[in-house]
Amino acid sequence: MSILLIAPNRDIKPFRDHLISADPNLDVDIWPAVPDKKRVNFIVAWNQPKNTLNLFPNLKVAASLGAGADHLIEDESIPQDVVIIKLITPALLDQMSDYVEMSCYNILRNSAAYFRQRQKTIWKVLKQYTKSDLAVGIMGLGKIGGHTARRMAANGWNVHGWAKTKKQIEGVRTYKESEFSQFLMNTNIAVSMLPLTDETDQLIDLTLFKQLRHPAFLINIGRGNQLVEEDLIYALDRGILEGAVLDVFENEPLQKSHPFWNREAITITPHIAAISDPKELAAEIANNYKRMLSGLNLKNIIDRKKGY
Amino acid sequence: MSILLIAPNRDIKPFRDHLISADPNLDVDIWPAVPDKKRVNFIVAWNQPKNTLNLFPNLKVAASLGAGADHLIEDESIPQDVVIIKLITPALLDQMSDYVEMSCYNILRNSAAYFRQRQKTIWKVLKQYTKSDLAVGIMGLGKIGGHTARRMAANGWNVHGWAKTKKQIEGVRTYKESEFSQFLMNTNIAVSMLPLTDETDQLIDLTLFKQLRHPAFLINIGRGNQLVEEDLIYALDRGILEGAVLDVFENEPLQKSHPFWNREAITITPHIAAISDPKELAAEIANNYKRMLSGLNLKNIIDRKKGY
Repeated sequence: MSILLIAPNRDIKPFRDHLISADPNLDVDIWPAVPDKKRVNFIVAWNQPKNTLNLFPNLKVAASLGAGADHLIEDESIPQDVVIIKLITPALLDQMSDYVEMSCYNILRNSAAYFRQRQKTIWKVLKQYTKSDLAVGIMGLGKIGGHTARRMAANGWNVHGWAKTKKQIEGVRTYKESEFSQFLMNTNIAVSMLPLTDETDQLIDLTLFKQLRHPAFLINIGRGNQLVEEDLIYALDRGILEGAVLDVFENEPLQKSHPFWNREAITITPHIAAISDPKELAAEIANNYKRMLSGLNLKNIIDRKKGY
Repeated sequence: MSILLIAPNRDIKPFRDHLISADPNLDVDIWPAVPDKKRVNFIVAWNQPKNTLNLFPNLKVAASLGAGADHLIEDESIPQDVVIIKLITPALLDQMSDYVEMSCYNILRNSAAYFRQRQKTIWKVLKQYTKSDLAVGIMGLGKIGGHTARRMAANGWNVHGWAKTKKQIEGVRTYKESEFSQFLMNTNIAVSMLPLTDETDQLIDLTLFKQLRHPAFLINIGRGNQLVEEDLIYALDRGILEGAVLDVFENEPLQKSHPFWNREAITITPHIAAISDPKELAAEIANNYKRMLSGLNLKNIIDRKKGY
């Protein structure tokens, strides 16, 4: 019985050490060095090559080394009886929520404009919004989006939330899939915390922007492919959107020549909304591995049909 | 019986309209046009000239048109039997707390550095701190500081608080006046929310900076005079402090030639941590005025000896 780590182009050895610290009895290999393929029953993968996860006859679980699991769901070479799970640590939940709330504060309080004023030695009070002026609309109310919505509502924000099925979250007005237009009409700051699926691919486009309440803003920490990049630029240039905060991009790192870099209205961070703590992640894997061995239900199982 | 507004160099007429909307029966004058000095029993003042508030024989209450009241406390021409109050509205409490929490997030998540990276087309992940890495130390636990400390603790921050007398705040480790050194030793991000008094004047100096836990940061939204400006620059240049967020300054607006403008490690905002909502402020004044007429206790009375 062994755990296999597959993460090409990434130094994963320190992570194996964390796993072994979490439980010295674990047997952990790093792909492609696999002494015995039959012993592998739990794989943790990031950017795995296709036709790799079908080489292990006793594989039971494939875990994503991150909150998104689309690289596993889209890999049709993974046998259907392998359970796919994602790893959600407390630090991840907290950091994603922090990033969204920080970005909303920075929008309200003109942080980027004041930063530029400092560079230009300008002392000028700008019009600032209050929490009641700008409604926050969270798209995706899974563990991460739900946590963010709940906390921001408790902190006095006007929070709306949209998900496939209607959710109940204290202090948050929620909408189901078919109520998307109503949700957008009541939202100033649209926040994508959605997983990448066929339905969310290219979801954030000009049609979406045009339905938002004014002034309108976008925060994307879901996946780069959810955003139609040219529509964002068009919407900013036409005043349909006032600003955007982006942590994820269609191609990362963002190319030097990409027009996003030149827009003052776009805040860019290099996919840092959440940086997993390797210790916490190792503990989460060890925990799930033991649950598998004991025949208990695994945590955060992906529904391969739904795609999240 | 009338209310007098004294705010030289400021267009205070719209504010009178808000007061009259709050209560159409109020009789409100704007200095220096005072038809009958004997009728004035409630003054709302900002930057009043000295020897002004002693001209009204029936004056009972002087209110500050802001959260700080040092301009009234230091004005020895105000008769001793006049009660000085400050005006604290719900929006003010919330905005001050928001500013502090936003600034702490921006410190943790390298917002200023990422902003510069965007300007320079640089995609580079920087080391980021977690909430458990950086303890927040709030100096001043009055209504505003207490609200901030309580909310940040509820949001998962490691919060310490220092005040003249020992306060009890859920989730916050508090220190009394004599425990200042212990408080500083446990603080990474020192936040001044103190009123300006003889004791807090020039309190934030090199001696204070040297006692902070590393890495150390300063957020000042108290009063500019609390900070020894040359000590801040010295501490930043020597690596004793990593960064500072300043909303208040010894002289405002900050002069074009001031060295603060040239430091990347300093975030400057033009005294906007809280911008009062004139409607809320008018309601607060009308409420206190009626309490005075009814003989009820006034809200937020200043102890002139303590200075806050």
